[in-house]
Amino acid sequence: MKIILDCFGGDNCPDSAIDGALLALEENKDLNIVLCGDEAVIGAYLADKSYDKSRVSILHAGDVLTNDDSPTLAIRRKKDSSMVVALRALADGDYDGLVSSGNTGALLVGASVIVKLIDGVQRASLSPLLPTLIDGKSTILVDGGANVDCKASMLKEFAVMGSAFMNAVCGVKYPKVALLNNGAEEEKGNALTKETHALLKDSDLNFVGNLEARDLFTGDADVIVADGFAGNVGIKSAEGMGKVIFKMLKRYILEGGLRAKLGYLLLKPSLKKLKGIMSSDAVGGGVFLGVKKIVVKAHGASNALAFKNAISRADEMARAGVVDKIAEALEKNENV
Amino acid sequence: MKIILDCFGGDNCPDSAIDGALLALEENKDLNIVLCGDEAVIGAYLADKSYDKSRVSILHAGDVLTNDDSPTLAIRRKKDSSMVVALRALADGDYDGLVSSGNTGALLVGASVIVKLIDGVQRASLSPLLPTLIDGKSTILVDGGANVDCKASMLKEFAVMGSAFMNAVCGVKYPKVALLNNGAEEEKGNALTKETHALLKDSDLNFVGNLEARDLFTGDADVIVADGFAGNVGIKSAEGMGKVIFKMLKRYILEGGLRAKLGYLLLKPSLKKLKGIMSSDAVGGGVFLGVKKIVVKAHGASNALAFKNAISRADEMARAGVVDKIAEALEKNENV
Repeated sequence: MKIILDCFGGDNCPDSAIDGALLALEENKDLNIVLCGDEAVIGAYLADKSYDKSRVSILHAGDVLTNDDSPTLAIRRKKDSSMVVALRALADGDYDGLVSSGNTGALLVGASVIVKLIDGVQRASLSPLLPTLIDGKSTILVDGGANVDCKASMLKEFAVMGSAFMNAVCGVKYPKVALLNNGAEEEKGNALTKETHALLKDSDLNFVGNLEARDLFTGDADVIVADGFAGNVGIKSAEGMGKVIFKMLKRYILEGGLRAKLGYLLLKPSLKKLKGIMSSDAVGGGVFLGVKKIVVKAHGASNALAFKNAISRADEMARAGVVDKIAEALEKNENV
Repeated sequence: MKIILDCFGGDNCPDSAIDGALLALEENKDLNIVLCGDEAVIGAYLADKSYDKSRVSILHAGDVLTNDDSPTLAIRRKKDSSMVVALRALADGDYDGLVSSGNTGALLVGASVIVKLIDGVQRASLSPLLPTLIDGKSTILVDGGANVDCKASMLKEFAVMGSAFMNAVCGVKYPKVALLNNGAEEEKGNALTKETHALLKDSDLNFVGNLEARDLFTGDADVIVADGFAGNVGIKSAEGMGKVIFKMLKRYILEGGLRAKLGYLLLKPSLKKLKGIMSSDAVGGGVFLGVKKIVVKAHGASNALAFKNAISRADEMARAGVVDKIAEALEKNENV
C-alpha cells in the first residue's frame, strides 16, 4: 500500500509526522509512504535518519494550510499547500490513502470536492473510533463533528457507512447500530432522531435502538449514529470530564497529606495506564467515510505514535477495501 | 417557607423522601413541609420518628404517577396521584414550592399546564446545577433535557432565566452566559446555535461567547445555554465517562497486584471524595425555570440527602424570589 502523509499543518509538524512515518515503515514492511510538504525541510529532517529509502518519497509542496485558514477558501486558493497537493495526488494518482493532522474543516471540504464523494453520498462523515470498556473493542461514532446540520436520510447513510466500516475493517459480522438519543425508549427523541429511528428500524441494518450518551463507551454498540453537533458534544464532554477527574484527584491527593501521596506513588502505574487510554492519542482523530479514497484525520496535536497509528489505520482500511464495501452497502440499502 | 414534597413516584419512595424532609426540617427551623401521598403509608412511616409536628402536615393522594406513565396523559387522567395533587395544591394554595423525584416529563407537563408558565415564557427549562473545578461554584445548564426541539428565541429566553437565577440565588452580579457549541470561534455552530449566538450578542446579557462541551465543568461560565437534546448529551456523556474511569481504574488495580491494592487503600479517601462530587446526588435533578411557582426535580434515585438538598434548593429559591426576578428579567429583555 502507498500512503500519502501531509507533513505540515498540525501542531508538531513536520517532525512528529515524519517520525511517525518512519515508525510505520519499520512496523509494516509492505508499506510505502509519500511525505508531502517542503522538500528541503523534509529532506533535512530525514538526512541523519536511517530508514528504507526505497519505500519513502517526497512530494513537494511549498505552502502550508493552517488552522486559521477558512476551509472552503483555503482549499480553493492555497493550491501549493501540502494538504491540497496531497489531496490532488490522492485524487489523480496511484495512491491508496492519505493521512493529515491539518485543518479538519479544510480536509473535509478538500476530501469532498477534490477526492470526491462516493456516488450517491450526500456528505462525508468524520468518524472517531471510541475506546470502550470491552478490551480491544472500539465503537465508531458517525458523525463526530463534520456535519452539524443533518437530515434523517444523512444519518441513515452514516449508519450504513459505519456498519460497512466495522464489518470490513474490524471484522464485525452484523455490526450493532445504535442511535444517540436523549432516552433509550423508542418514543424518545427530537424531530431528527425520531425520523431517523423510523428509517433505521425499516433498514436491513442490525439496528439495536436508541442509546443514551452515558453509554457511549460501554461497547454495547459497534456503530453509534449521531448528527455531528450532538456527536461533537458527546465526545468533548467525555473528554472534559476525564480532565476534571484527574485534576480533582490531583487536588485531593495534595490535600490528603502523606498517606494520599504514598497511595498515589503506588497507584501511579495504574493511573498512568488509565490516562493513556483516555488521551486524545487514543480518542482523537478519525476516518472520513463516504469519500472515494481513504482519508484519515490524525488529531492536531498528534505525536509520532499517533501519526503511526493513523498511517496504520489508513493502510488497514485500504487493505480491507473499505471504499468499495461502503459503495456496495449504500447501493444495497438505497431502496430499503 | 412552606414546601410541598411529592413523596411517591421515585425509586426510594416514600422512605427516602420522608427522611429527607425530616433532615431538612432539622437543618432549617423556618421551614414547613407538606408531605403529599398516601396518608396511611406516610403516617405509619412517621409514627416512630421524632420531629417538630407543628411544621409537618400530610396532603392525601391515593394514587401514584410512575415512570411508565405517558406524561401528558397521566397529568390529565391520574388526578389523584401524589404528583398531580401536589401540583394542584401548589397552583391554588399558599405554598412556596414543590419538590418531586417522579416522572420528569410528567412534572414538566404538569408544571407548565397546572402551575402555568410566567407570562410570555414559551417553554419551561429543566436546569441542572453542574459542579465545577472551582470550589463551591456551580454552573446552571439551561436546558438540560426538557426541550429537545428548540428555536433560537427559546434559547435566548433560557439565557435570561438562567442569568436571573444565578443572580438571585447564587448572588452572581453579572452572570457570564455561554452558548454550548461545537467550537469556540464565533462563526462555529449549527443553524440553531448560529442564530442564537447573534441573539445573545445583541442582548444585554453578559454573553461571553461559545463554549465547547469539554469546558462544561471548568466554571468559566455561570450560565450555559443549550437546546435540551445537546444539553442532555453533554451531561450524560460526562456521567458515562466518570463511570468508565472508575470502572477501568478498578480493573487496573485488580491487575496491578499488591502494590496497586495497597496504593488504592491509601488513596481510598481521596477517591471516595472524588466519586462523591461526581455522583448524581450532586449532578442529578434540577430546577424548572419559567414556571409561576418554584418546582424542583430531585433525581429519580434520590436518597434522603438528595431530597434534603432538593428541599433546601426550593426553599432558597423561594426566599430569593426567583419567580419574580425571572419575570422582571424577561420583561426587561423583551425588546432587546
